[in-house]
Amino acid sequence: MTRTDGTPPTITSAPVPRSAAGPAKITVLGAGSWGTTFAKVLADAAADAGAERTVCLWGRSPEAMAILSREHRNERYVPGVDLPEGLEYSSDLPAALDGAGLVVAAIPAQSLRAQLTVAAPHLDPDAVVLSLAKGLESSTGLRMTEVIAQLLGEHAAGSQEEWAGRTCVLSGPNLAMEIAREEPTASVVAAPEHETAAWVARCCAAPYFRPYTNTDVVGTEIGGLVKNVIALCVGICDGRGYGDNSKASVMTRGLAETTRLALALGGDLTTLSGLSGMGDLVATCSSSLSRNRTAGRLLGAGLTLAQVQDAMTQTAEGITSAPAVLALARRHGVDMPITDAVVSVLRDGAPVDELAPKLLGRDLKSEGNTA
Amino acid sequence: MTRTDGTPPTITSAPVPRSAAGPAKITVLGAGSWGTTFAKVLADAAADAGAERTVCLWGRSPEAMAILSREHRNERYVPGVDLPEGLEYSSDLPAALDGAGLVVAAIPAQSLRAQLTVAAPHLDPDAVVLSLAKGLESSTGLRMTEVIAQLLGEHAAGSQEEWAGRTCVLSGPNLAMEIAREEPTASVVAAPEHETAAWVARCCAAPYFRPYTNTDVVGTEIGGLVKNVIALCVGICDGRGYGDNSKASVMTRGLAETTRLALALGGDLTTLSGLSGMGDLVATCSSSLSRNRTAGRLLGAGLTLAQVQDAMTQTAEGITSAPAVLALARRHGVDMPITDAVVSVLRDGAPVDELAPKLLGRDLKSEGNTA
Repeated sequence: MTRTDGTPPTITSAPVPRSAAGPAKITVLGAGSWGTTFAKVLADAAADAGAERTVCLWGRSPEAMAILSREHRNERYVPGVDLPEGLEYSSDLPAALDGAGLVVAAIPAQSLRAQLTVAAPHLDPDAVVLSLAKGLESSTGLRMTEVIAQLLGEHAAGSQEEWAGRTCVLSGPNLAMEIAREEPTASVVAAPEHETAAWVARCCAAPYFRPYTNTDVVGTEIGGLVKNVIALCVGICDGRGYGDNSKASVMTRGLAETTRLALALGGDLTTLSGLSGMGDLVATCSSSLSRNRTAGRLLGAGLTLAQVQDAMTQTAEGITSAPAVLALARRHGVDMPITDAVVSVLRDGAPVDELAPKLLGRDLKSEGNTA
Repeated sequence: MTRTDGTPPTITSAPVPRSAAGPAKITVLGAGSWGTTFAKVLADAAADAGAERTVCLWGRSPEAMAILSREHRNERYVPGVDLPEGLEYSSDLPAALDGAGLVVAAIPAQSLRAQLTVAAPHLDPDAVVLSLAKGLESSTGLRMTEVIAQLLGEHAAGSQEEWAGRTCVLSGPNLAMEIAREEPTASVVAAPEHETAAWVARCCAAPYFRPYTNTDVVGTEIGGLVKNVIALCVGICDGRGYGDNSKASVMTRGLAETTRLALALGGDLTTLSGLSGMGDLVATCSSSLSRNRTAGRLLGAGLTLAQVQDAMTQTAEGITSAPAVLALARRHGVDMPITDAVVSVLRDGAPVDELAPKLLGRDLKSEGNTA
């Protein structure tokens, strides 16, 4: 298991040899915008590679999945996009998971444990699990790959250590709607073993979607989850009417504190400077589609947290994760002033006007001492 | 002199002791948008510190400077912004430079040598020079601080080495119009000696403008000039209709190649991850006001380089610097695929459609090998 205390992951089981041809079946759990889009990527990748492969998208609602199956569209979450002909749809969990060599968890961070626990007994004991979820579980402070390995160790065949060795994460500058429209996009697959990452990357390499690989699971995951907190702060700056200078400074210093946290947990600097670190942060903070940036903008415009939550139909994950990120940073002695400032706005109702001095700093300092 | 071959700067003269109170007079050469705005910052900083200090803005045109002096406005370059009462204006070079302990060069990269050569004989022999110019001199491939030290060594009192020890650069996420409107902004002053950087930083610390310091002149300068080339590429992506995923990838991989070049020249990683590296890049690439991004957008929309240059009233510095950046990279054996792609569009008229495959890469690779 990859631990939060910064020790390197201990892989007690040898990697399972996998067919170079890839899995015969891949199942995506979760038919929201990212799950649906990624199922399309997987089906397009299989077609592009000429692979004989079933790609199955599972969602909880039989009615919703029946509509998807009939219309080859998911108008609620990916409006206007035709889904590939070969894609299958299911609301039957045991049937959907039967024979799946790769299981993709496209489930929101705070409901991942509950939903995957139900799925666990039906997982193929050799399956590789790919997490698309971004956040820390607020009740435990665990990262998503840690939650997955822990619960599968309890509820599926195989030990926690074995599952940790086969649990991967995909993260990058990946606004779902742009990928659904087949705009050229790159991403990163991280796994404890390079072979596993490369095997997963081959499954999702579509003409418009280019996955790179690394073995830095913790760095990739931290980049993807802290960026939601930084996006909240960039949104607050937006809501206060600050310009691109201020927002670029927040992104820069936000990535610096994200990097400090990732390094303290055993992650690599290169990962945070790459597509799943800087890339994801910049894409999220540039996009008017980001839920976290939108929530921040409403806070910056003067709404209370309760009003923001009422106004939004989908969760802004950064709101839930921010206190857990700050707690994790404190356990590891990492200074995260932007996260700290966001938490004081969210939890203590600190006035957003007090943010600017905190973000720009008060003293003339050498940058290296403070970045 | 700081050399382009990567050897560390040799400071042969001891730093001149400077008054902690700062200079009695500062002169800004160049009354364009950035020069005018920075003169305002300097005057506001002096007022904020309660310092007895003359701040003089010099511009070539007597008529234009007379209007500025009368109206306390520069409507052409900084429309709608009231300039501080205390700011002085001049088109008389010897008078403007007389007694100036800090001289700020706010002159476009390709005319810096000619203009500063005229000014050189009038410089105080102990003056500190601060460069706001961003680019490589296309005829020599030299950075702006190198050009300044070289020409002052020839045309002013004091050797090239002495001037190099007193030549600084200011760079950061600094869109001029936002600073002119007093939106909170941070920046970086780099000088060969920390004391010099701190002395300059104190001169320009205004309530809305926060300068940090470092001693990495080459890293700070490379970040500020290569970002213009990357902004051209982000603009081209915009013009082709690519979304935030692609643009974030270009910024990420663009900063990676900028960092490789800076490291090869003796710069520091921290500088490139900081406000003058990532910060400046993100601000420029996010802003609809950026000339380089605008030029790229027109190229991406299908205009030829000649048509783009006709359409724009001010130079997009990246167009001139890109071939010089590529040549510098090649001399140092640094791979810069994005700069390379931009140069092939600019110089060889390569179709912009061929850019996307080059930017996203063709093979599934480990990210660290390619970033």
